[in-house]
Amino acid sequence: MISVVVVGSGNVATHLIQAFSQVDTICLKQVYTRNLDDLETFKITIPVTNSLDLLEEADVTIIAVSDDAISEVSSQIQNSFVVHTSGNTGMQQLRNSTRKGVFYPLQSFSKEKPVDFHHIPFCLEVENSKDMAMLEILANALGGSIYHISSDQRKNIHVAAVFANNFTNHMYQMAKDICDTHQIPFDILQPLIEETADKVKRLSPKDAQTGPAIRKDEKTIKNHLNLLDSSQKELYKHLTESIQKHGKKL
Amino acid sequence: MISVVVVGSGNVATHLIQAFSQVDTICLKQVYTRNLDDLETFKITIPVTNSLDLLEEADVTIIAVSDDAISEVSSQIQNSFVVHTSGNTGMQQLRNSTRKGVFYPLQSFSKEKPVDFHHIPFCLEVENSKDMAMLEILANALGGSIYHISSDQRKNIHVAAVFANNFTNHMYQMAKDICDTHQIPFDILQPLIEETADKVKRLSPKDAQTGPAIRKDEKTIKNHLNLLDSSQKELYKHLTESIQKHGKKL
Ligand SMILES: NC(=O)c1ccc[n+]([C@@H]2O[C@H](COP(=O)([O-])OP(=O)(O)OC[C@H]3O[C@@H](n4cnc5c(N)ncnc54)[C@H](OP(=O)(O)O)[C@@H]3O)[C@@H](O)[C@H]2O)c1
Ligand SMILES: NC(=O)c1ccc[n+]([C@@H]2O[C@H](COP(=O)([O-])OP(=O)(O)OC[C@H]3O[C@@H](n4cnc5c(N)ncnc54)[C@H](OP(=O)(O)O)[C@@H]3O)[C@@H](O)[C@H]2O)c1
Repeated sequence: MISVVVVGSGNVATHLIQAFSQVDTICLKQVYTRNLDDLETFKITIPVTNSLDLLEEADVTIIAVSDDAISEVSSQIQNSFVVHTSGNTGMQQLRNSTRKGVFYPLQSFSKEKPVDFHHIPFCLEVENSKDMAMLEILANALGGSIYHISSDQRKNIHVAAVFANNFTNHMYQMAKDICDTHQIPFDILQPLIEETADKVKRLSPKDAQTGPAIRKDEKTIKNHLNLLDSSQKELYKHLTESIQKHGKKL
Repeated sequence: MISVVVVGSGNVATHLIQAFSQVDTICLKQVYTRNLDDLETFKITIPVTNSLDLLEEADVTIIAVSDDAISEVSSQIQNSFVVHTSGNTGMQQLRNSTRKGVFYPLQSFSKEKPVDFHHIPFCLEVENSKDMAMLEILANALGGSIYHISSDQRKNIHVAAVFANNFTNHMYQMAKDICDTHQIPFDILQPLIEETADKVKRLSPKDAQTGPAIRKDEKTIKNHLNLLDSSQKELYKHLTESIQKHGKKL
């Protein structure tokens, strides 16, 4: 049985705490939070502290605090093996003097939204290779998929995720704006949104690319531009150009 | 029983022909194609012609040819009720002298990929309101969802679809490029892609927006830009700016 301490009470910490406490093979020993009120909604009974000096030792101590606070918080921890959960932060930004690692779940979390950890990719990294097995057991216990990812790769995954998540969501937002302006229900686009996401499971995005930009269908592009307001137009042009340049590069 | 003639043998025509011939309540009377070889792969027996002069009369004649050919092809058709399947083309670009309509399935079709018409939105438009019921029966028979959409709305849906499909796919492509450069398997992003698409079923894209751009997290944005090549950088900047401007507008 692997013992775990979780440091933090935000989006990621909340879901990890909930998930670990439902798994028999993991012992969630303690949770640290700056503000004890944050954990009041929990129906489960886990020892909680608001002092890092009172942190109990565990096989794995998971720091799930804001990126900016990882170095400072880790510098105050004496536990034997400390990992953070950030996509964006090198392993060496941990400042504990003991063993270090990374346990980064590649998904978008918010407190309100239930999370199913099944198939969530965990990007794992360790300083000492013998610690990897322990992180793999944790990820497996939650039902996640395991990837061995270096700090350098992880930073790049984080940028890739900005395209695949934040920027994609902005495309949906642009689409919704157009629908709203013309009294079209946004849900009319939902099957297309799903199909677009589904397609890249089987086809590479390059092969899945369709539409006026890749076809160089200037007539349709011009018609579309005429329908858009100035900021929509600007973005449409940049994206069309980027698709066409990309087509050339390959 | 409603009778149908399909004109064309491309992506959309192929799937409509296959779907109609599996529905008992629709009589698929005939298919027109310029090139009889196009339909050779069909295992079903439907009368086929390569001459518009030999087109049989039907309750609904569906023109599923390239946008540019819709006017010309429709001008040669005498059938009583003629519709096209284009998102991009006004109803009045049909040049038949009889009744007109539009039967636009809002989804991305390719010949190779099986299509399940269930829940596909059909954007329907008619000149004579009494024809609407017939198009609704056709769309229902295929299991589609029904939307009454004017030519003006449909053009705007088509632009919105470019954002929700073509531009979104380009975001996936940018993400895959980054993965490829750093020997990261692209499938690591699949759960995030799915979750992002799924989220906007429940939340508006505005409320679903997360990430460094909307947080105005300049440090992370700078780190990300340092990891990108010049054309990726340019697009990242435009999209970040667009997200930040959008936040302000609302
Ligand atoms: N959200 C996601 O989608 C996601 C996904 C994967 C990885 N991550 C990573 O997971 C980590 C946590 O993210 P999150 O979304 O859970 O953040 P969050 O919801 O903003 O929560 C941050 C937590 O850190 C605590 N904290 C901040 N500064 C602190 C300090 N100086 N000392 C002690 N505690 C401090 C906060 O305490 P207070 O409540 O008292 O402020 C809060 O409990 C980050 O490294 C993030 O990059 C996030
Ligand atoms: N594909 C989609 O995702 C999609 C989705 C919704 C709506 N639509 C609309 O559906 C329609 C058809 O699109 P598609 O993707 O099926 O196109 P497609 O696969 O390119 O097929 C076009 C068809 O039109 C025929 N054609 C072209 N010019 C013609 C002419 N002058 N006379 C007679 N036949 C002609 C072609 O014949 P040949 O094979 O002999 O060239 C072919 O059968 C378009 O209006 C399109 O906007 C497409």
